[in-house]
Amino acid sequence: MSELVEALLAGKHSALARVITKIENRSPGYRDVVSALHRHTGHAEVIGVTGSPGAGKSTLVDKVAAEYRDRGHTVGVIAIDPSSPYSGGAVLGDRIRMASNAGDMDVFFRSMSARGSLGGLSTATTDAVTALDAFGKDYVVVETVGAGQNEVDIVRTADTVAVLVPPGSGDDVQMLKAGILEIGDVFVVNKADLDGADRTVQQLREMLQGRSTAGHHGASGTEVAGTTEDGGAAEDGWEPPIVETVANRSEGVGEFLAALSDHGDYLDRTGGREQQARDRFAAEIRTLLREDANRMVAAELDRGGGLDAYLDAVMARETDPYTVVDEVLEPLRDCLDGRSEHGE
Amino acid sequence: MSELVEALLAGKHSALARVITKIENRSPGYRDVVSALHRHTGHAEVIGVTGSPGAGKSTLVDKVAAEYRDRGHTVGVIAIDPSSPYSGGAVLGDRIRMASNAGDMDVFFRSMSARGSLGGLSTATTDAVTALDAFGKDYVVVETVGAGQNEVDIVRTADTVAVLVPPGSGDDVQMLKAGILEIGDVFVVNKADLDGADRTVQQLREMLQGRSTAGHHGASGTEVAGTTEDGGAAEDGWEPPIVETVANRSEGVGEFLAALSDHGDYLDRTGGREQQARDRFAAEIRTLLREDANRMVAAELDRGGGLDAYLDAVMARETDPYTVVDEVLEPLRDCLDGRSEHGE
Repeated sequence: MSELVEALLAGKHSALARVITKIENRSPGYRDVVSALHRHTGHAEVIGVTGSPGAGKSTLVDKVAAEYRDRGHTVGVIAIDPSSPYSGGAVLGDRIRMASNAGDMDVFFRSMSARGSLGGLSTATTDAVTALDAFGKDYVVVETVGAGQNEVDIVRTADTVAVLVPPGSGDDVQMLKAGILEIGDVFVVNKADLDGADRTVQQLREMLQGRSTAGHHGASGTEVAGTTEDGGAAEDGWEPPIVETVANRSEGVGEFLAALSDHGDYLDRTGGREQQARDRFAAEIRTLLREDANRMVAAELDRGGGLDAYLDAVMARETDPYTVVDEVLEPLRDCLDGRSEHGE
Repeated sequence: MSELVEALLAGKHSALARVITKIENRSPGYRDVVSALHRHTGHAEVIGVTGSPGAGKSTLVDKVAAEYRDRGHTVGVIAIDPSSPYSGGAVLGDRIRMASNAGDMDVFFRSMSARGSLGGLSTATTDAVTALDAFGKDYVVVETVGAGQNEVDIVRTADTVAVLVPPGSGDDVQMLKAGILEIGDVFVVNKADLDGADRTVQQLREMLQGRSTAGHHGASGTEVAGTTEDGGAAEDGWEPPIVETVANRSEGVGEFLAALSDHGDYLDRTGGREQQARDRFAAEIRTLLREDANRMVAAELDRGGGLDAYLDAVMARETDPYTVVDEVLEPLRDCLDGRSEHGE
């Protein structure tokens, strides 16, 4: 096990790939691996990219990865599809071929899909980012396939979240619903050469001006003091810029990277980066506690003869669900009460 | 507390209203109330009604309730809005006025909204159905406002699920996504006088013929053996009929009730009613166990000094989320292990 960790820390991409597979499958020992990697993290800049299907996310992400690499940085990309139970091979292969210099492993592509619960996929994404960060990647890009609530949860793993909007999509209301507007630090109108792009930019600008700063992804403890028509950082807060790109012609990629970088600077300047990391760890710990507690309770249920015996009694109206739950959890409660009585 | 239960069982609508408020707010003692009511349940026929906004659910439900009452049955209606944090007053008032004979309390209307988690609302719906069933209502109608995954979970409380589709809505794909097709026992094309109604019926029929029977709401342990073009019960399985209604003119309401009744007969004939009830109780027990376990774990976290102390150490890379979780849960595990060692 620690051999695998050592190989990853020594910069072996094969070890990185094996660790992420372990994380995705929740294979035995994955927790110890992630635990061991944690102390080597905190250096990568993590970018989340989300937006409706067809917005051109993967094309833009490929260009971004190539540009980072051309500037001498190392990059890891995780593409997440919460709606698909399938994983790995095909998508990964396609994407590697799409990268301009696939032989150059400074860009590491990996796709992950929903195996278990959604909470699980969100945790797995966090763990995969940990692996890429510990490996030493300068930039980690987390790309989601869709733009629903699941994607919002996943993309929160990032320091900076970019939301892609295709022009003239009329997606505004749906995006608002999914909470996408609230989490965007940078907005991108991709395919900006298409009809309706100007109108989409204008609509976005109006919506962003109307949005509350309370739930703003990057604005913990700060207030938006002024508005800058052209986007960019205001005096005390962050006004999400709207960048226009034509990703398949590489247009606007430089401006997009500049906007991401501006937001990174903003986070460093305001302490937002640390606050976000803290919030993320808090959410992660809560999720893990919930998952573990559920496993312990399931074991208690089995100990009590399994669900079937209880169900017979509930169906016969001899007992009821609430009473069953109290009975199953009684040993745990007694245990904890006994401990308190002995002042432990 | 048992006074409240006695008043409900004695047929006092004010007590029924108070119990449902208690359930909705998770007020102290609500568990004991629901526990006490459970043994008096199992007599009501529970109908779930879902479908996209604008499909005319509330109009149809009002007509259904009035028709049941005119036939001498008692009816309870719970309208659930998972997307709204607001509850009670206004909607309830409107709906009571809409009922043709509001003074006649044989039709009891009540709206409930999202207070806490969605799981919570689903549990609260189940508990409210328990209250109406124990009260002695012959029919309980659970109506949801939207048609998403949340609504699917809520409507599973019912023995028979009716899905409403507005004509020419183009909602087909979205409905498939939300799993609505899989849970419908009866489909209703409401506003059947509008253009496009025939096409919608035809589209629905094609989709239903294509749907897998594996996840079929009412078909546990059975297989669909044949198809009946006009809907109704096939020899071994249930082929969901498609009923056309114009609810605001009361057209097709009789046919709709006949279809619901057919499905009820089918459940009785095949043992499906008991199997569904068993499945529901199993799901409910699992949900309650999860909720309680989460509360116990949160208490352990507080005992360990709260999340903040742990977060400081995680941020300093002195520990990591997985190790924190192991530490918090260690006392619980030790407790349980100790018990096994002593052969208890």
